[in-house]
Amino acid sequence: MNVATTHATKPGYPLEFPKNQWYVAGHAQDLGRELISRRILGEPVCFYRKQDGAAVALVDRCIHRQMPLSKGLLQGNNVRCAYHGILFGDDGRALEIPSQTNIPEKCRVHSYPLVESGGLLWIWMGDQAADRSLIPHHPWLDDPQWVVVRGSLHMKARAQLLNENLLDLSHLSYLHPGSIGSDDVVSAPTTMEFDERSVRVTRDMNNAISPPMFIRAMGLDGRIDRHQVAEFIAPGFHITHLDARATGKTGAQMFSHKAIHCITPERAHSAHYFWAITRNYRIEDEDVSRLWREGAPKVFAEDIDASEAIEETISAYEPGYPPELDLKVDGGPLRARRIIERLVAAEHGA
Amino acid sequence: MNVATTHATKPGYPLEFPKNQWYVAGHAQDLGRELISRRILGEPVCFYRKQDGAAVALVDRCIHRQMPLSKGLLQGNNVRCAYHGILFGDDGRALEIPSQTNIPEKCRVHSYPLVESGGLLWIWMGDQAADRSLIPHHPWLDDPQWVVVRGSLHMKARAQLLNENLLDLSHLSYLHPGSIGSDDVVSAPTTMEFDERSVRVTRDMNNAISPPMFIRAMGLDGRIDRHQVAEFIAPGFHITHLDARATGKTGAQMFSHKAIHCITPERAHSAHYFWAITRNYRIEDEDVSRLWREGAPKVFAEDIDASEAIEETISAYEPGYPPELDLKVDGGPLRARRIIERLVAAEHGA
Amino acid sequence: MNVATTHATKPGYPLEFPKNQWYVAGHAQDLGRELISRRILGEPVCFYRKQDGAAVALVDRCIHRQMPLSKGLLQGNNVRCAYHGILFGDDGRALEIPSQTNIPEKCRVHSYPLVESGGLLWIWMGDQAADRSLIPHHPWLDDPQWVVVRGSLHMKARAQLLNENLLDLSHLSYLHPGSIGSDDVVSAPTTMEFDERSVRVTRDMNNAISPPMFIRAMGLDGRIDRHQVAEFIAPGFHITHLDARATGKTGAQMFSHKAIHCITPERAHSAHYFWAITRNYRIEDEDVSRLWREGAPKVFAEDIDASEAIEETISAYEPGYPPELDLKVDGGPLRARRIIERLVAAEHGA
Repeated sequence: MNVATTHATKPGYPLEFPKNQWYVAGHAQDLGRELISRRILGEPVCFYRKQDGAAVALVDRCIHRQMPLSKGLLQGNNVRCAYHGILFGDDGRALEIPSQTNIPEKCRVHSYPLVESGGLLWIWMGDQAADRSLIPHHPWLDDPQWVVVRGSLHMKARAQLLNENLLDLSHLSYLHPGSIGSDDVVSAPTTMEFDERSVRVTRDMNNAISPPMFIRAMGLDGRIDRHQVAEFIAPGFHITHLDARATGKTGAQMFSHKAIHCITPERAHSAHYFWAITRNYRIEDEDVSRLWREGAPKVFAEDIDASEAIEETISAYEPGYPPELDLKVDGGPLRARRIIERLVAAEHGA
Repeated sequence: MNVATTHATKPGYPLEFPKNQWYVAGHAQDLGRELISRRILGEPVCFYRKQDGAAVALVDRCIHRQMPLSKGLLQGNNVRCAYHGILFGDDGRALEIPSQTNIPEKCRVHSYPLVESGGLLWIWMGDQAADRSLIPHHPWLDDPQWVVVRGSLHMKARAQLLNENLLDLSHLSYLHPGSIGSDDVVSAPTTMEFDERSVRVTRDMNNAISPPMFIRAMGLDGRIDRHQVAEFIAPGFHITHLDARATGKTGAQMFSHKAIHCITPERAHSAHYFWAITRNYRIEDEDVSRLWREGAPKVFAEDIDASEAIEETISAYEPGYPPELDLKVDGGPLRARRIIERLVAAEHGA
Repeated sequence: MNVATTHATKPGYPLEFPKNQWYVAGHAQDLGRELISRRILGEPVCFYRKQDGAAVALVDRCIHRQMPLSKGLLQGNNVRCAYHGILFGDDGRALEIPSQTNIPEKCRVHSYPLVESGGLLWIWMGDQAADRSLIPHHPWLDDPQWVVVRGSLHMKARAQLLNENLLDLSHLSYLHPGSIGSDDVVSAPTTMEFDERSVRVTRDMNNAISPPMFIRAMGLDGRIDRHQVAEFIAPGFHITHLDARATGKTGAQMFSHKAIHCITPERAHSAHYFWAITRNYRIEDEDVSRLWREGAPKVFAEDIDASEAIEETISAYEPGYPPELDLKVDGGPLRARRIIERLVAAEHGA
């Protein structure tokens, strides 16, 4: 169809992500003594825990004839392929080939560096040496002063749509008016900082309207001072720092939250969305925990709906892209876009 | 698969359509005070009516970040994007950008020329100036001496399949024997006329068998004189002129109909089919109206079934095309094919 | 997605098959006096029987406007197209064009050479002269000393996956432990023979464990001597010769079977699987027949499951292919792979 003739040359939301990076592959609590398969950056990965509880990630295709290892058997710390019975250790080396006695050195599958931290599974997808110092800090996920609720979502849209959504919270007023958005969010002044791998957008809202979710969770039913920082650490880790308290009340309690969003490309046009909400108030109050556990995915579903609607629109123009106009609020999102593009370019250049 | 080796080089039913043309986007009666989305030539278009009833068509992707405007809110005569709240007027210009005070000139979406006439919505898809004189004449749709029944269908096949189906009515004897076809249709003599934008195929059937639908609607249960003209006006408007009366009876009543078929490409491999049947007899007889309102889409569904079966066959050969043989009855259809191809080529050359 | 960077250059399971070969198009018993449509090598084919019972195969698209002939009417020995009524004889020549009197020589559809033998329909898909001597021998399908049970399966994976599966029966120990596999299959010594069109892999298992299906069908519940030959005749005919008897018993009965597997590409990524099991014992015992008729497709479904899991994995890498390691048991499968590749290359060179 001739819509192609209206394509802009300027690229929009990118589709490709860097491999030599840490991605969140899931919540630690969801992995046990069974084989599960999950695509990360288009690669099939087989996950399981060893007898001592250590988490393992092997490429989910047997080096012999491409059978997904996740269809096989977990035997002790090893995986036996369901097709011809090759047994692989957790380092990916073949330990046994039933149809022959010698085991070639090349008979092995890739074992991905996998780190468990903050209740998250961090996987390194590239073939360069994994640099553990690149895992973003996330102290509130392990701190007894903070309580965490968690969940997993899936999106039929490219990951970058959520990366940029989370860096421009002006959308809260329109996409989330029934939960965390109010009219004053969009007009609040913002400042942006960045470095080579991260972007921070700060948004201060004083004497602002308390949105519905704040009234329910914090009991803030008057005007509030709301301070929000959207922090992105490449390639897909977000911390939304959210502090709120009653406006002008002496000694008013500060309610603090860290909303953690882990956006991991599944395939080019789909993404995993692993999230956690931590808070430092009423940490033993299960009613508040339930409010966030049930309320947060409803809010995030609105972001996913918007992203999927946009994906359906733009993917029809591939390999072109329809015209697009940047606004002032796009400073943060565009900075993140440039970081991703630069990391991808660096890998192709290497 | 190596079927590719049997491809003919001669192109068959084309996939591409010209943009600088009027297409029917729907029936006027189906559009009201809400936002609807419809793809035309692959472009997403958002339709709505203003407070004074005037119909509007905007491209259905926000210029900012591609969000479908049809997911937003209709506010007065304007549309507010659901994502970041930009308000667009019916001319496509941004009237408000909530996150900033200045409104760049470029912050606008395309507003398509849209004309309401004959109970149809006519949209101009190109970027050249819309030429209203190119809208085909359709007096019977507005004439109180004629009564109209209407409906909408959808086809998972390229539009040109129906454009050519409607210009070779020899298929009536085989595809529609239970409704409007009889054995004598296929063998009736035809004449063909054409100009740069239209094709007319005339088919005279005297002393012919009255097909089932004619018996029911007109009470013609003996031999009939049937005169039929298939008229195509590029890029997708068809008038099937159908006159019938009892053979050899002095002063026999002439029953006249205009079957209007508006074939509008939705995407490359799918099409909208907006139809109307007008008649100049028993115009207040609701039984006859119901007969056509319910019977016509059953007949058209047979054309759609055939077109979809052909589409499934030929799309498997893309970008090639299987061998194809033209017959004498294809004079009209091939002329229409050439007109479409020529209009497309002219746009690419411009 | 950048998984492409890990592609191996070495090709794996091929997607393309030679056309100038006999393929099994179905079981003879399933074809009668009606039009059926089946894709073979991506080509739509219309099958039917003439009044004298002879089977016919025509390309399933009308030469005029691509309508599937299988949507038409079987009239005597001929097929009338449902769209414009052209009547084709079983040799593919047009016998009647209702809209005109002259019948152009070119108004014909391809009639495929079709042979009925062994209860199978053999179709020749190429345009070179069909060479009947290339049909593999299959005497057990017509021999009154042998009894046959049959069935048809479908696979959403490239045909070659099954061709190679059937030539490396070491997988029986892992994929089919509940039916025809036992632990000693994988470690049994094998020998391989081949010529330009066929491959034979022999596997002897003496004093072996009797697998569950053998106990049920043959009553062999002790140790057995099992002799198995996997024979492949290009492009997709397999005979698994299977002989078993009780170990070390004087005059023990030999139970012989020929498992016939006909693997026919449907499209590039899907295949038909027509199978038959013949045996030379208890040939009138319906209980044993039912055991094989119901049990065999359950075993084959395990092969299909594995093949479809592999297809899903490897097709995500197209046009690349992930790394793959060959083992000693792959001698037979790789030989078959080379035969297919060589036949395809010869056609492209011709």
